[in-house]
Amino acid sequence: MIEDKNPQRTSLSELGEFGLIEHLTKNLEIKQDSTVKGIGDDAAVLDFKDAKTVVSTDLLIEGVHFDLAYVPLKHLGYKAVMVNLSDIYAMNAKATQVTVSIAVSNRFPLEALEELYDGIRMASKIYNVDVVGGDTTSSTRGLIISVTAIGVVSEDEVVYREGAKENDLLVVTGDLGGAYLGLQVLEREKEVWKVNPNSQPDISMYSYLLERQLKPEARKDIPVLLKELGVKPTSMIDVSDGLSSEVIHLCKSSKVGANVYEDKIPLDPQVISTSEEFELNSTMVALSGGEDYELLFTVSQDDYPKIKGNPHFTIIGHMTQESEGIHLVTRANTKIEMKARGWNALSEEKEESEEE
Amino acid sequence: MIEDKNPQRTSLSELGEFGLIEHLTKNLEIKQDSTVKGIGDDAAVLDFKDAKTVVSTDLLIEGVHFDLAYVPLKHLGYKAVMVNLSDIYAMNAKATQVTVSIAVSNRFPLEALEELYDGIRMASKIYNVDVVGGDTTSSTRGLIISVTAIGVVSEDEVVYREGAKENDLLVVTGDLGGAYLGLQVLEREKEVWKVNPNSQPDISMYSYLLERQLKPEARKDIPVLLKELGVKPTSMIDVSDGLSSEVIHLCKSSKVGANVYEDKIPLDPQVISTSEEFELNSTMVALSGGEDYELLFTVSQDDYPKIKGNPHFTIIGHMTQESEGIHLVTRANTKIEMKARGWNALSEEKEESEEE
Repeated sequence: MIEDKNPQRTSLSELGEFGLIEHLTKNLEIKQDSTVKGIGDDAAVLDFKDAKTVVSTDLLIEGVHFDLAYVPLKHLGYKAVMVNLSDIYAMNAKATQVTVSIAVSNRFPLEALEELYDGIRMASKIYNVDVVGGDTTSSTRGLIISVTAIGVVSEDEVVYREGAKENDLLVVTGDLGGAYLGLQVLEREKEVWKVNPNSQPDISMYSYLLERQLKPEARKDIPVLLKELGVKPTSMIDVSDGLSSEVIHLCKSSKVGANVYEDKIPLDPQVISTSEEFELNSTMVALSGGEDYELLFTVSQDDYPKIKGNPHFTIIGHMTQESEGIHLVTRANTKIEMKARGWNALSEEKEESEEE
Repeated sequence: MIEDKNPQRTSLSELGEFGLIEHLTKNLEIKQDSTVKGIGDDAAVLDFKDAKTVVSTDLLIEGVHFDLAYVPLKHLGYKAVMVNLSDIYAMNAKATQVTVSIAVSNRFPLEALEELYDGIRMASKIYNVDVVGGDTTSSTRGLIISVTAIGVVSEDEVVYREGAKENDLLVVTGDLGGAYLGLQVLEREKEVWKVNPNSQPDISMYSYLLERQLKPEARKDIPVLLKELGVKPTSMIDVSDGLSSEVIHLCKSSKVGANVYEDKIPLDPQVISTSEEFELNSTMVALSGGEDYELLFTVSQDDYPKIKGNPHFTIIGHMTQESEGIHLVTRANTKIEMKARGWNALSEEKEESEEE
């Protein structure tokens, strides 16, 4: 996580805008058959034959979505791609291309952007997506990253948020809450570091949490696995804002209710122990933490035999009639109405006055 | 241009992120057959049958690309869409969808974002494109807009930057330099206003220039017109950074040289008179001004009869062997090597220190 600062600093204005784009993108390979034309024209040209095109976009802002005090730029580039690919996989689609736009203030030397692009390149290589365009410009302050991800899906495989039916099983991949706790650990270490810049904290017991926060992996494998198992979810969403927010999205889009069982929510042992250490309720962490980039989906009860016992999947509840509402059934067997307490960018913003 | 400030101020945090997205996007209509699923899922789903998909993206940053002191938000929303559609038309393609992401600091009330979206909605209506997605989040400072435009083109109609041949004619649509001079007028009025906030300047003699700067129109009509005329350009690019920069792009991509004739460059009378007033060389304004969003293309000499005398087109030069270089032939018949002096975001940036 901790990386040597590159001692070389090349000013961005030495390269100019076009030089910068060329420099940063020259090592990006095109591998997808569907990429007819990548970077270097007014627009990318893609060919999806008779399949559907899937498009999703996200903005990441320094000081809102990430803090460069503890996020290495390479990881940030990787994560920016993951956040968007996750949305493509949530459509049960295959991700094929991304465009990446960045705006930077001149406090960033070229070497910093190279590091950022190293992460983007690594993500595009591992996830087999082509970087086909983007924009590189300046900001008055800080780093801004905008990624648009493009994918492909056939008409009979696309999964929306809106198809869940009463009695469908509610299933989540992986485990939840790790990314949020990773952020708590990093925030705490930053405060410690402010007091004592020479401190070398032992963070090995949080390794999984830090990985979940700093280098999340989108669930590329899940659409493939579902196809192998012969399962088409009735609805699907990615878990970016916390479980409760996503369950509510599926329910509202599908016009159903849901019961989620607290004792079924998959938690890593590090999530349980670190929640205790931070005096947080681990269920609340999973429900509201966000940034897990797992997939949440519903399947017909008929598909139960196909997913039962699969280590990637945990059945955490089932869908009900809309009128029954959306509830968490606690370990004590009481029903609590679920509310979206997901990470809400707009309530967390820290405005700095214009006059400062 | 000057609009009443809306006296109502609804705080964004009252709505929350999801509420805000829903509020801003509820009036957006879907009209394109190719839009299978628009806003409201993890990703948009598009169906282009057997045609090619075209994708382009741009980032607009307050303080770098626009100044809210004189750009009404409605115009800004409109322009943000235009900038991107222009890239789609430059591929000789039809624009069909856009995604719009915005990041705002909490100094913006809801009403400001509604105004911005009014402009986005107006652009999408007039240009017949669907708004199919986006992201709405907070910024630590100022307004950031990221637009991705998507279009469709058949394989035999797509035009790249790279097909220009020796002896091809170099053609530009409309006229050049107006948007840059409009910006100069606005910058001057802002300085006047700083000294005397009650001044009511007479800017009627700059009306065309201000319109070019504040409410540019992308050349949706040109791909249609070219098809009607039976002309397929050998190369094409949009004029966003100034004519010289775009001529150089076409030449480098196509491995040819060019002669551009100074006396052929189309200039509006307001460009000529206002250049004089500002003591600027109008040719330099056209070559380096940028933001005109016209199209620059090359055609075979065989197509000359088809474009001759068309009021949308001006033949400004011709392509040469690569070894002859890229030159402006002045009115005095001297050849000057063309250099890209286009609007360069990275050299113009104004970093503000982190400690302020």
